[in-house]
Amino acid sequence: MLKALREEVLEANLELVRRGLVLYTFGNASGISRDEGLVVIKPSGVPYDSMTAEHLVITDLDGRILEGNLKPSSDLPTHLALYKAFPAIGGVVHTHSTNATSWAQACREIPCLGTTHADYFYGAVPVTCPMEPHEIGSQYEWNTGEAIIRCFAGRDPLQTRAVLVAGHGPFCWGTSASDAAHVAVVLEEIARMAYAAMVLNPSVQPISDALLDKHFLRKHGPDAYYGQSTPKN
Amino acid sequence: MLKALREEVLEANLELVRRGLVLYTFGNASGISRDEGLVVIKPSGVPYDSMTAEHLVITDLDGRILEGNLKPSSDLPTHLALYKAFPAIGGVVHTHSTNATSWAQACREIPCLGTTHADYFYGAVPVTCPMEPHEIGSQYEWNTGEAIIRCFAGRDPLQTRAVLVAGHGPFCWGTSASDAAHVAVVLEEIARMAYAAMVLNPSVQPISDALLDKHFLRKHGPDAYYGQSTPKN
Amino acid sequence: MLKALREEVLEANLELVRRGLVLYTFGNASGISRDEGLVVIKPSGVPYDSMTAEHLVITDLDGRILEGNLKPSSDLPTHLALYKAFPAIGGVVHTHSTNATSWAQACREIPCLGTTHADYFYGAVPVTCPMEPHEIGSQYEWNTGEAIIRCFAGRDPLQTRAVLVAGHGPFCWGTSASDAAHVAVVLEEIARMAYAAMVLNPSVQPISDALLDKHFLRKHGPDAYYGQSTPKN
Amino acid sequence: MLKALREEVLEANLELVRRGLVLYTFGNASGISRDEGLVVIKPSGVPYDSMTAEHLVITDLDGRILEGNLKPSSDLPTHLALYKAFPAIGGVVHTHSTNATSWAQACREIPCLGTTHADYFYGAVPVTCPMEPHEIGSQYEWNTGEAIIRCFAGRDPLQTRAVLVAGHGPFCWGTSASDAAHVAVVLEEIARMAYAAMVLNPSVQPISDALLDKHFLRKHGPDAYYGQSTPKN
Repeated sequence: MLKALREEVLEANLELVRRGLVLYTFGNASGISRDEGLVVIKPSGVPYDSMTAEHLVITDLDGRILEGNLKPSSDLPTHLALYKAFPAIGGVVHTHSTNATSWAQACREIPCLGTTHADYFYGAVPVTCPMEPHEIGSQYEWNTGEAIIRCFAGRDPLQTRAVLVAGHGPFCWGTSASDAAHVAVVLEEIARMAYAAMVLNPSVQPISDALLDKHFLRKHGPDAYYGQSTPKN
Repeated sequence: MLKALREEVLEANLELVRRGLVLYTFGNASGISRDEGLVVIKPSGVPYDSMTAEHLVITDLDGRILEGNLKPSSDLPTHLALYKAFPAIGGVVHTHSTNATSWAQACREIPCLGTTHADYFYGAVPVTCPMEPHEIGSQYEWNTGEAIIRCFAGRDPLQTRAVLVAGHGPFCWGTSASDAAHVAVVLEEIARMAYAAMVLNPSVQPISDALLDKHFLRKHGPDAYYGQSTPKN
Repeated sequence: MLKALREEVLEANLELVRRGLVLYTFGNASGISRDEGLVVIKPSGVPYDSMTAEHLVITDLDGRILEGNLKPSSDLPTHLALYKAFPAIGGVVHTHSTNATSWAQACREIPCLGTTHADYFYGAVPVTCPMEPHEIGSQYEWNTGEAIIRCFAGRDPLQTRAVLVAGHGPFCWGTSASDAAHVAVVLEEIARMAYAAMVLNPSVQPISDALLDKHFLRKHGPDAYYGQSTPKN
Repeated sequence: MLKALREEVLEANLELVRRGLVLYTFGNASGISRDEGLVVIKPSGVPYDSMTAEHLVITDLDGRILEGNLKPSSDLPTHLALYKAFPAIGGVVHTHSTNATSWAQACREIPCLGTTHADYFYGAVPVTCPMEPHEIGSQYEWNTGEAIIRCFAGRDPLQTRAVLVAGHGPFCWGTSASDAAHVAVVLEEIARMAYAAMVLNPSVQPISDALLDKHFLRKHGPDAYYGQSTPKN
């Protein structure tokens, strides 16, 4: 079932390893088949180097396991909440990557300090409000998703494909599992550069709206001209 | 003698190398057979890349060498003190890993700033008091163990499987040598993230008790539900 | 056409990958044949690991594509502006390398704090003024080149082979594409060391003019004596 | 001539590469045969990956080339000054390694903040005074050696086998070329840890004399008991 999606989700998980974003079994990636309403996700606590597409778990949008002998990632409910709230997304990735997690632990959004950031995120990468004890005590992972969704009220999730969960770490998403993994890798690099820029100049301001627009829109939307998918100019 | 334990202790030592926690001959891992009261430990100052299980040294809990042609790690007495004081532990690891050692040198405990930390340690990773000249002048390595044990008065060593020895570096432990090595690797990453979080937000506060409880207890104790060892929910 | 230059430009692009200066398709290198007025440049958004010399694009100095089936790097107009303004240069490299980009994001020039810097750059690596909305809104990439050129009024571009574009990242150049790539690699290291030196001593001053002269001129110009190309003394 | 010494000096140079201390042709290592008064040193500006023992240059203590077709490292006079002033040393290494150089650029000595440092250096790693224009203008490399020697007046160079040349970088030495390379690698790590410790606790104090004595003397001198070269206790 969902053979191609399984392969893509496996590959997205392995990309996190290759890029140094995960330690041991940290992190997880999933993808969704919107037609069938099915999610493919990494199993919980399984080492990456022995993971195959068969180890992945398939669930429906309510988290019922339809295929797989292993337990799904304990963060599954967060993934499901995001898939339900953001119909345009096709993949979700969660990591504890060093620099993005440092910002999450500092409870600070990552301001848009440069064009690397603007190429991927249309403004700051926001940080959620800390969760309340009653949100933590019951249905914690689902409520993590709710905290993200509240944080994104009024935002287009495809214009800002990442969030920092306060005191926890980043969740990223995209049009597919591989897109989400790509965003997670870039977020980690952006977090690293923003950290050093803040140290060098604690009063640094975000780049201008003009520069933000230029960079985001030259890679995204109808007027994009970066890469090979648009006609030569 | 203790063939399986020798292999596990060798592997724990090599894990420190693979994960970039040791330089040259720095660091050491040991494991204990509680039934026999015997400890297997790395030899002193031997390069990791030529180390085999036969090079490891077996001693009793008083440090008498029962097997092995090499001198044991000079930190052996610290390991022994921990094995005697903490009957539930099965392995000890000592490193001078960069980030954990930086906190030890700064004489600061690592506060619990995020869920990565809470997944492993039930609160701050404490730092010992500086040792007094008379503790250093005689039986120094044993007294290092004593300083750790005093620091853990009233704590469950399996809930906080690491300590920073002030002006020195981390000691870690666990249910086995491989568990202790795993903790040492994660501690290094947590130390790195906490460092950057403190720089980004010097007044950052530890995560709430609710979040600490949630994360620690979803991986440890009777209600754990992370990983594959507990039934599918 | 321009087979040797194609190979050199490919190699310069790959050097950026080998040295960890680029992530995914970030960055680009080009080279110019001054005799023919032709530029060889990396295609836009193509992965490095499948890139061959045939993928490179050849344009004239007005950006007209003369050979190649792919779109050139979107930064081509910046390269062309530099080739036109700086007749002595033979190659241009642009990266978003972590540390150099952090300085660019902090809108700070990199002061010459040591002899590593002085071996390559005859004084601070300057940072451009932020670009105005009208420069960004139209012919952005060309205007990026203009901002660099204004910043270099009165400077010899071969004595300072790099600039930080504010809120963006470094552009480097040299006598050839491979020289420009070499400069980009060294700039990243210099940026990293200057960052740490500033943290350790926020009031640190640039090295003396005497030391700057000594180091720059022992590697550059008629009295150079570093390396093998000058007679044994 | 001096075949074994050539091999050791080559190996010391390559160790700097393997440990990430040098970029391109940065850095150099040499060794001395005291009996013959001859020094073997890296050639100037030759890539490490094609370097063989035959490329190394042999000179006498006045810098006259006795064997070799290549120019010696331009830092040769600094090495010679050290060999003349410190009769007990057998090897010298110079690098621009990132963290040690950052301290040199900050013009700060590296205080002894922990036992990793104390295991190798008997107190702070000192920084030289900035050189005067007349010292830079003539016989610069020799005068760099003189600045180091002045800085070591009253010190035993085998108890502190490294120095930071202000605004430049570290010079290290030891009983042999390989010992000097080992010290250079450890110095880089110590510099990195001290940097982070200073950031975490700007008012941190050096470890006590008792702890410094204990660690330095358990590895050095007649009462050493670390490693395998001393009898089992």
